[in-house]
Parts: sequence; C-alpha cells; structure tokens
Amino acid sequence: MTDNTNTHPFDQAVQLTGTADSYEGHTSPHYANMVGPFGGITAATLLKAILIHPQRQGDPLSLTVNYAAPVADGRFHIQAKPVRTNRSTQHWYVELEQQGQVAATATAVCANRRHTWAATELPFPAVPAAQDVASLARAGFPAWVNQYDLRLIQGGMTPLVPIADPQTLVDSVSLLWIRDEPRRSLDFLSLTAIADTFFPRIYVRRQQFVPVGTVSFTLHFHADAAALAVVGERAVLGHARANRFYNNYFDQTAEVWSPEGDLLATSSQIVYFKE
Amino acid sequence: MTDNTNTHPFDQAVQLTGTADSYEGHTSPHYANMVGPFGGITAATLLKAILIHPQRQGDPLSLTVNYAAPVADGRFHIQAKPVRTNRSTQHWYVELEQQGQVAATATAVCANRRHTWAATELPFPAVPAAQDVASLARAGFPAWVNQYDLRLIQGGMTPLVPIADPQTLVDSVSLLWIRDEPRRSLDFLSLTAIADTFFPRIYVRRQQFVPVGTVSFTLHFHADAAALAVVGERAVLGHARANRFYNNYFDQTAEVWSPEGDLLATSSQIVYFKE
Repeated sequence: MTDNTNTHPFDQAVQLTGTADSYEGHTSPHYANMVGPFGGITAATLLKAILIHPQRQGDPLSLTVNYAAPVADGRFHIQAKPVRTNRSTQHWYVELEQQGQVAATATAVCANRRHTWAATELPFPAVPAAQDVASLARAGFPAWVNQYDLRLIQGGMTPLVPIADPQTLVDSVSLLWIRDEPRRSLDFLSLTAIADTFFPRIYVRRQQFVPVGTVSFTLHFHADAAALAVVGERAVLGHARANRFYNNYFDQTAEVWSPEGDLLATSSQIVYFKE
Repeated sequence: MTDNTNTHPFDQAVQLTGTADSYEGHTSPHYANMVGPFGGITAATLLKAILIHPQRQGDPLSLTVNYAAPVADGRFHIQAKPVRTNRSTQHWYVELEQQGQVAATATAVCANRRHTWAATELPFPAVPAAQDVASLARAGFPAWVNQYDLRLIQGGMTPLVPIADPQTLVDSVSLLWIRDEPRRSLDFLSLTAIADTFFPRIYVRRQQFVPVGTVSFTLHFHADAAALAVVGERAVLGHARANRFYNNYFDQTAEVWSPEGDLLATSSQIVYFKE
C-alpha cells in the first residue's frame, strides 16, 4: 500500500477497492491489536462495504459483526449482499474472507428516517469536560490504542503496573472521552470503531490480562449523519459495563454520547475469555 | 398441519421438517401477532434450524435476528449454514424465505463453554415472588399473548382502556414475571421467545398504540442448558427499558433472570415506530 499522507490512517485502514461483488482490503499496522486487527476497525470496514455499495439505500441503523476467526495481517476480501430492500429499510449480509475461509460476518440494516417524536430515557452521565481529563498514557498498549485519544474518568487499566490483588475493582464500569488521534470528523464508520474501543471488561474488573476475543458485536445507531457532523472532531463520551462473566464469556453493554448529551449509539457484545 | 395434542403449542410452532439444506415450517395461529407471527417465535424457529442441524456443535451463545419483511401466514423455508467451525465456537448464517424472498435473516454463534471464574455485576431487581403478582388479563391482545403468563410488576399497558394523556409515564421500564402458558420447561428456544415478549417500549412510554415492528433483535445467552433446566416450568423475571426514541426508531435493552437471580440472557433490539 502506498502511504498517502493526505489521508487519515483510519480512512487508509478501511479503504476498499474492487467492485460490489468482491471488495478487497488490507489490514493496517496502525490498527493492529495483539492478534490481528482491532475489532472496531474490522467492524467499520464491513460497514464501509455496505456504505459504498451502489445499491445502498439509507443510513446505518443496526450492525452486528460476528468475529469467526482472527484476521491475518494482509489482504482480505469482502462480499456485501443486499438480501432485502423495502421502501424504508434495507437488510444486508456481509462476509469477510481470507484464503477462501470466512473470518467475519455481518448483518446490517440501513434505513431512511423521518422526523418524529423523540425522547432519551437514559440520563447523560455527570462528567467533567474532555479538556479537564488527562489523556491515557498509551505506552504498553497495542498499536491501535495510539489511534485514539482516550480520557478516562472511571474504570481504566494500567498495563505496565502489575496489580497485587487481581480483584481490586468491584465493577467493570468505564467512563471515558474518546476521539480519533489525529482528529477526524465523526461519521458512521468512525463511530462504529469508537463503540468498540472499550478495553475488555475483564481487564478492568480484574486488572489483569487474560486471552480474550470479541465473538459478536451489535451496534444500534440513534443518530443521523447531521447529528454526527455536529460532533465534528470533538471527543464523544463512552460508557461501558459488563452484566455477567460466566464460563468463558462475558458481555458488555455500552453507550456513546455526543458532548451535548445526544445518545449517538448503543452497543452490546459478547466476548470470549480464557483462564 | 395435524394437531398433536401431546405437543406443546410452542413446539408445534417451531416445528421444522425437511433436511439441513432446506427446512420447512409453518406459522402457528397460536403465536399470531397483529401482522404476521410474534417476532419471538420467528427468532426461536430460526434458532431451532441451527440446533437440529446435523453439523451443530455447542450451545447457543449469541443470536441476532433481522426482520426483513412481515412473515405471511403459511409455509416458510429456512436455510441454516455453518459458515465457520472452530474448536470451541461455530458461526452460523440463517435465512427464512417465503415465495423466494428473504423475510428474515439471522446470525448466531454456538460455543462449548467450560467452567471459569464467574461474576454477575448487574443487581437482581428487588421484586415480589411470581405467585404474589396478578397475571395480566389478556383480553384485547393479539393471540400470542395468550401463550404466556405475564405478571407485571411495573410498566404495563392496558389495551382496552383509553388513556386521556398519552404521555402519562415518565419512562418505559417494565418488570414482569414470564412463563409459557401452558407451562413448559425452559430451554434455549423458549428463552429466545421469552426475551422478545416485552411489549414495544413506545406502548409503555406513551400508553397508546402506533404501528411498530422490530427490525433487529440480538440475544446473548449467559447460561448453559443445565442452568435453564433448573428453572424448569417456573416463571423467569424480565426487565426491559428503552434508551432512546428518535426519528422512527427506538431501542430496547432487556434482561431475563431465573427466580434465584441467575442472569440467563441479555438482549438489545431496535424497533420501527410510525407516528
């Protein structure tokens, strides 16, 4: 890949070439995780295959990504298929393949939304402004963490400091300001990746590393493109927690808010962990 | 369809015949909703196509159902495809078709779970026992509601009583005991349907009917078959809420608990509404 210095590393990472029948992409060293790419960049790349598809109608409403196997560094192919198109919704199935094997799947719904009565029931958390919170020191984290400015208010982790008691914390709740580093205007693709930037809840709860991997990640969008444009390059507020850790798997539910308290997206995921 | 009086209506409704390449099913009048079948029975039927598949490995961990179009009363075909099988997880894609058109899709992950450290962070709600709560009077509701015993503690709705002020309630939270009617031992299939029995949140919040339809429904299982067997024929506790209503769509997050306070499943869905 040629390094286009005019293009944000995020846009390089989600770049796809080819035709609608088979898009080709390439993993980015900037978004590398401990094994394979950061799951959020894979989710954004699968969504991008839909958004650039010539038959796409409407904006993303719902996305579920199933991580079937680690994505190996290098090329991958994506097929995005509109399985049903209605007047106001369009349903998609997407597969990411490497060496003829499925490494990830996604389903998604795009929709045309109209103005209606609206209400947000979940309260916006009481937090200090992003500029009043220190950025996370990123030494010791995988490469992708360097692509984000993370300002932790609650529920962080310190990879370089061994913790004597591995069950220090009573919960796994995290609350943090998040933005792309370098800055980039928020859109559906970057919001998708941002919604997966929360460290695995078991790291926060137990303050120690164990092998983990997201198995399934679901995102519901509660905002349209105009609302994301209002956020622009500013940080969004992320709030994440686990409900249950049980027999190799834990879940995570999370919300992403605009600085003004607009709920932009909610997510749930289920994550493998090994003891 | 022959009426087998020895079979529970739920098992009749999710019955599939044929081979793994193309299962055939039939909608059940017992689980009819206002338009087409109750979404929970469709979700359970899609999951059943996986569970009876000869290549299936492990128990359900995650399920996402996308409702692409109303399912018409009558026959439907289901294809369930294992897209990737690993040592401990198996990834599925499922399509439900009528007249050659996709009416619903699902992705799912099955997994072999081992005993690990466990913790439930979400507190079990303080509630009266099921036997101390009155069953919902089911007159005026669609057929499927008769297949459940619903004991509402908070956040119900009364379809036969017009409400003067349509915005009476300050939130859409519902808390209720739920079991199959007639009684049936809990398993992954009935738990899937039960997780979708919550009335649309906009009905609860605004105490009025508007056209609605679930677009995407995600369920994460936090229990194994043995834990479900412990529940047996008793009611489970459901807890549901909306986070945001915005421009034709609202979400719902929900939990299903055993009577002893084991968190069995968590779900999220996004639902269309019309004004």
